Amino acid sequence: MSTDSAAQSGEERLIARYFAPLAKHPGALGLTDDAAAITPPAGCDLVLKTDGIVGGVHFFPDDPPDMVAKKALRVNLSDLAAKGATPLGFLLTLALPEEVGDAWLAPFARGLGADAQAFGCPLLGGDTDRTGGPITISIAVIGAVPQGRMVRRAGAQAGDRVVVTGTIGDAALGLRLRRDASAAKRWGLTPEQRNQLEARYLVPEPRTAIAEILRAHASAAMDVSDGLAGDFGKLCRASTVAAEIAVARVPLSDGARAALAEEPALIETILTGGDDYEVVACVPAGKVEILRRQASAAGVAVTEIGAVTAGKGTARFLDPDGQPLAFRQASFSHF
Amino acid sequence: MSTDSAAQSGEERLIARYFAPLAKHPGALGLTDDAAAITPPAGCDLVLKTDGIVGGVHFFPDDPPDMVAKKALRVNLSDLAAKGATPLGFLLTLALPEEVGDAWLAPFARGLGADAQAFGCPLLGGDTDRTGGPITISIAVIGAVPQGRMVRRAGAQAGDRVVVTGTIGDAALGLRLRRDASAAKRWGLTPEQRNQLEARYLVPEPRTAIAEILRAHASAAMDVSDGLAGDFGKLCRASTVAAEIAVARVPLSDGARAALAEEPALIETILTGGDDYEVVACVPAGKVEILRRQASAAGVAVTEIGAVTAGKGTARFLDPDGQPLAFRQASFSHF
Repeated sequence: MSTDSAAQSGEERLIARYFAPLAKHPGALGLTDDAAAITPPAGCDLVLKTDGIVGGVHFFPDDPPDMVAKKALRVNLSDLAAKGATPLGFLLTLALPEEVGDAWLAPFARGLGADAQAFGCPLLGGDTDRTGGPITISIAVIGAVPQGRMVRRAGAQAGDRVVVTGTIGDAALGLRLRRDASAAKRWGLTPEQRNQLEARYLVPEPRTAIAEILRAHASAAMDVSDGLAGDFGKLCRASTVAAEIAVARVPLSDGARAALAEEPALIETILTGGDDYEVVACVPAGKVEILRRQASAAGVAVTEIGAVTAGKGTARFLDPDGQPLAFRQASFSHF
Repeated sequence: MSTDSAAQSGEERLIARYFAPLAKHPGALGLTDDAAAITPPAGCDLVLKTDGIVGGVHFFPDDPPDMVAKKALRVNLSDLAAKGATPLGFLLTLALPEEVGDAWLAPFARGLGADAQAFGCPLLGGDTDRTGGPITISIAVIGAVPQGRMVRRAGAQAGDRVVVTGTIGDAALGLRLRRDASAAKRWGLTPEQRNQLEARYLVPEPRTAIAEILRAHASAAMDVSDGLAGDFGKLCRASTVAAEIAVARVPLSDGARAALAEEPALIETILTGGDDYEVVACVPAGKVEILRRQASAAGVAVTEIGAVTAGKGTARFLDPDGQPLAFRQASFSHF
C-alpha cells in the first residue's frame, strides 16, 4: 500500500538500473521524461531506419544476451553505414516474456551499452513491455548526412563497377552450422573456421568505418541483409539498371571456401542466405581504386565483383563459364 | 526458379501493396530504399519517442485491425502532444505470426493510413518480420518543437495548478468491461455508456490539437498512459515538487460516474488503471484560464484538479474530507 504516488514502479526501477546508464546524450534526459529532445546537426539530413529482431526467428533463445543486444543495434547501424550516415542515437522497444528477468537484462544492457559507446550511438529513449511470445527487440536509429547526400539505392549508372565489403555467405553458413551440428564435419571445417562462421551469424560487423567513404565515391549502395543476390536485385530495380556479377570474384572467407569445395551447391546459400551485413555498392570505374584504398585504410576490405550495364532492373550472377546461376529464391523473405 | 534476381520477394510485395501508399513524405522514398532521409525543420529540436503494443497485452487478438493500427500510432502521438511537439513522421516495426495475412493487413494498413493522414504524421520507413508470438507493433515517432521548447516533466513549480484534459479512467473501466461482461449490468450502464468506455480502451484520442497551447502555457506536462496517480507521481519526482489533487474534481465521463456510484472502490481503477492518453499538465495560476479557453476552442476540455506545492516528489490524492487515498499500486507497470 502506498498513501501517495512516490513509489517507483517496477518499470521505472528497471529503466533506472539497466538503461539510464546508456542514455548519455543530454537530450535523452536520463530517460526520466516521455521523449528525447535533440537538436539536429546544422546542414544535415536525418537518416531514419528501424529494424526488429525476434527470438526464434533472428536469434536463438539461448544466444548470449549481450550478443543479442549487439545484433539488434548493429543490424540498424549497418543500414546507416551503407547510406553514408553517421549515427546520432537510437530508440529501443523491448517486449519480454515473464521468465526474462535480471539474469538476462543485465548482460543485454551491458552488450548494448558497449556497442552504443563503440559506435557513438547513444540510447535516446525506449519502451519495455511484457509479451506472451518470444523476446522481441525493435530498434530505430537516427543518423545524419550532409543535406541531400544520403547514398541511395537508386543512383547506379551503367558502367559503374559493383563492389562488396568483407566476405559474403558466412552468416548463412553459420546458421546452417547452428542448426546441423554434423555439417562442420561434412564440410571439413577446422574448429576456427566453424567458430568464425557461427560468430558471423551471431553478431554482424556494421561497416560504420566507411560511411563517409561511401558518401564520397559510391553512386548507389545498400547493406546486404537478405542475401547478396536478392538485395543487389533490389538495388538494380531501384536504379533501373542491369548488372553482371562474376560469382568467382565474390569474396569468401576460408571457412566458406572450404565448405563450398566439399559441397558446391552451397553457392546458393552463400549468395542468397542473408545476414551478411556487408555493403554492396556501385562505384564509377574511375573511383573504385580510391574507394578500395581508403576503405582498406579504415580496416574494411572492398572487392570488385562485377559491373552495371544498361537494362531493366536485373542482376545476373555468372559462373566461370559465363552461365547465369539459377536460384530457387534470390532473397530471404519472411513473407 | 528464377535465373536472375528480378523477382520481387513476398516482403517487397507486402510493402508495395500495403505500406508504400502510406509513405507520402518524399523523404520516405516510397519505401524503396533502406532508410528515409528528411531535412529537419529549421530552428527546431527533434522530439523522439517509441512505444510498442503487443497482442494479448495491450490489445485483444480479435480487436479490429484498423483500431489496433490506430492505437499503435496514437499512443505515440499522445506523447508528442504532451511534449508540445508537432508530428513529422513515424517508423513502424511489425512482427506477425504465420496465420496473419492479407485479411488482417489490409484493414490494419487502412486504419494506419487514415490516422497518418488525420494527424499529419506520414510513414517514413519500417520493417516486417515473422514471430512465433503474438502480433507485436512498435512505432517510433519523430516530432518537432522550436529549439529548447519541449515541454518537460521536470518544469513544475510550487504554486502551479494541475490540469488534465478530457476524462480520466474510462479506458481502465472499458478494459474491465471487456474482461467481465457482467460488469455493465452491475454498474447499471446504458448501452451507450458501455460502448463509450470500451471505445476509449480500444482507441485513444491523442491531444495533438493542444500541443502548441501546452508549449505556450504549461510549465510541465506528460501524457497519462499508466494511470493518473502513478504518472503524475513521476512528474512530481522529475520536478522535485509535491502536489495535492482533489479527487472530486478529477473529470469523469457519464459512464465512469455511473459505475463509480454503484461501486465506489472503482476510484482506484479510475485513478491508477492506465490507458487514458490524456494530458496532465502543471500551469502557472495566471495562465490556467487562457490555456483552458484556447484548449476549449481547439475542442479539448481542460479541468483544474489540484495544485503544486513545495515538497519532495509526492502527489497526494485527497478525498472530499481532505484524507489522502491509499492505492495498492499507484501506476500500471509491466514489471
